[in-house]
Amino acid sequence: AETKKIAVIAGDGIGPEVVAEAEKVLQKVGEVFGYSFETEHALFGGIAIDEKGTPLPAETLEVCKRADAVLLGAVGGPKWDNNSKELRPETGLLGIRKELGLFSNLRPAVVFDCLKDASTLKPEVLEGTDLMVVRELTGGIYFGEKFRRETEYGEEAVDTCAYNVTEVERIARQAFDIAMKRRKKLASVDKANVLETSRLWRETVIRVSADYPEVELEHVLVDNCAMQLLRRPSSFDVIVTENMFGDILSDEAAMLTGSIGMLASASLGEGSYGLYEPVHGSAPDIAGQGLANPIATILSTALMLRISFGYGEAADAIERAVAEVLDAGHRTSDIAAGRVEALSTKQMGELILKAI
Amino acid sequence: AETKKIAVIAGDGIGPEVVAEAEKVLQKVGEVFGYSFETEHALFGGIAIDEKGTPLPAETLEVCKRADAVLLGAVGGPKWDNNSKELRPETGLLGIRKELGLFSNLRPAVVFDCLKDASTLKPEVLEGTDLMVVRELTGGIYFGEKFRRETEYGEEAVDTCAYNVTEVERIARQAFDIAMKRRKKLASVDKANVLETSRLWRETVIRVSADYPEVELEHVLVDNCAMQLLRRPSSFDVIVTENMFGDILSDEAAMLTGSIGMLASASLGEGSYGLYEPVHGSAPDIAGQGLANPIATILSTALMLRISFGYGEAADAIERAVAEVLDAGHRTSDIAAGRVEALSTKQMGELILKAI
Ligand SMILES: CC(C)[C@H](C(=O)O)[C@@H](O)C(=O)O
Ligand SMILES: CC(C)[C@H](C(=O)O)[C@@H](O)C(=O)O
Repeated sequence: AETKKIAVIAGDGIGPEVVAEAEKVLQKVGEVFGYSFETEHALFGGIAIDEKGTPLPAETLEVCKRADAVLLGAVGGPKWDNNSKELRPETGLLGIRKELGLFSNLRPAVVFDCLKDASTLKPEVLEGTDLMVVRELTGGIYFGEKFRRETEYGEEAVDTCAYNVTEVERIARQAFDIAMKRRKKLASVDKANVLETSRLWRETVIRVSADYPEVELEHVLVDNCAMQLLRRPSSFDVIVTENMFGDILSDEAAMLTGSIGMLASASLGEGSYGLYEPVHGSAPDIAGQGLANPIATILSTALMLRISFGYGEAADAIERAVAEVLDAGHRTSDIAAGRVEALSTKQMGELILKAI
Repeated sequence: AETKKIAVIAGDGIGPEVVAEAEKVLQKVGEVFGYSFETEHALFGGIAIDEKGTPLPAETLEVCKRADAVLLGAVGGPKWDNNSKELRPETGLLGIRKELGLFSNLRPAVVFDCLKDASTLKPEVLEGTDLMVVRELTGGIYFGEKFRRETEYGEEAVDTCAYNVTEVERIARQAFDIAMKRRKKLASVDKANVLETSRLWRETVIRVSADYPEVELEHVLVDNCAMQLLRRPSSFDVIVTENMFGDILSDEAAMLTGSIGMLASASLGEGSYGLYEPVHGSAPDIAGQGLANPIATILSTALMLRISFGYGEAADAIERAVAEVLDAGHRTSDIAAGRVEALSTKQMGELILKAI
């Protein structure tokens, strides 16, 4: 098979530790299945601010652009939190999404059997929860014009939220395509009773739905969705929504599974290009101590193999290996719940490697 | 005492039924404590669309303006959901908030003992949860300029989110004042890492905090808040946030208490003027059947007495009466959980009346 190029962005905090384990998994999968991967590392986020004076250096963007996919650890930390806007890790994150055209963020929220008890929801409510939030990632209020101006009521700040039909259509199609491969249910979330962008969103989703007669479509207002996620999480299959609502709802959905430290995500552009990263953050409090759980990053790598490279078998093998290791009772400290001896990041990575 | 004028808007669905019980409570409280109330009814929402051709008739606004406070049942229903914008109940709701200057929405989220099990959260997580969401209600993306325009990518919709210092300051002060009367903790929720309005929000809240040295202030990003409400609901005291975030988070907070059918709310303007309504909706499916639970509306009336009229003793008496009736095991069907015989709306109202 051709060599797949992967841009590896270790990032900040526990990023480098978890990414190191994911890279070993990549290598192993290459050996076992006969795939060839070439990785190229690049600086991004806080470390790039420190070493290059910008969160998203031009050469990092170059490395990403010439790759077939990007693997990202985590970015940010208190060290950079009070920097000016251009010198903050988040600014790099928004920049890389826009520059790489990553218009769609997939956040699967599933419940890991071994973590059922970690959820604050009752087990019977959580039972069967397996949903996917499809969040629009390069439009809306995140990227609209922002400014300040003087008014008679003092300084005023303005953010602009805009969506055009093309943007809504491509994310809607992707969500319908994903729903077709799952349980064929799609909840489109908006605030059509208040926002003009939501009315355009809803009209467009309805128009696109004509091409997917098998998918059962419901429109849910964002406030109601925040409630229904708590009341009937297992009734959702795919949720599609705009950038800001998706930011809030995907985090709510991830948290209610109790498995937030184990969840993977994919940010996709046109074609098969994508950026893959764990849902969890850079956890500066435990960085550098070998305590971090590498599973979310390893599962993000599996997503990369499946979605960007079409290596479904290899992705399955990784996911099976993770399940096997967890079933055997192995845990890092975040999921040990004080009940079993906790493994280090490397030990967990090692066990998963062996199980592949 | 002087006569307090109350504009009563029964509204749609179960609105008239629950408001009728609240009015009886008002009368009883007047007799017991020697207060004098004068009520004036007005059409609003769906019924106003049907009878007057607009959700917010001019005479309704007049009735509200000459009153000292407004009691609202519920508005809306499927009958009007597909109407054009000007003929929808929500439009009336946004209009009345703006016209009456109701810039602050207080949504207490408490757990009723008898409903502890109704929550989808584990009881040990919910334990001690008693929080108040203070939502800015007349600014932000709800009221900013909205329009459509043609672009090279097809039609585009635009919503504008704006906040000025005066708007943020008055809601911040109110939240701090409320926190001072509670556990002295305030969480200000924004998305300052992305939005300009949030940065102005945060700067202003920090400036105002100088006048409240006793209040412990934390800044929470909206996505994180959606998670923390699930993880540690009891750690929140007062949450203050802008209109759109408040819409989402107040519903999430209400739902996690499991007591959403029992929660009251207040929308306040300058001075002591306010509009009071239950958090629940118009429940068209059970309307007119005498099944609705009047407690949230009765508790909203108590809030009115306390906040708008300063009749704290009378408010306490109502709240005590509700607690007593519930403690004695009386339930309407929504909270009977099939375990006890369900009372009708009127029977429940009657029992509370007697307990005052
Ligand atoms: C860091 C922040 C800008 C970012 C976002 O809001 O998109 C994060 O919350 C996320 O969800 O990836
Ligand atoms: C009906 C709708 C316009 C309204 C809002 O979003 O403010 C409702 O959800 C609420 O919270 O009172």
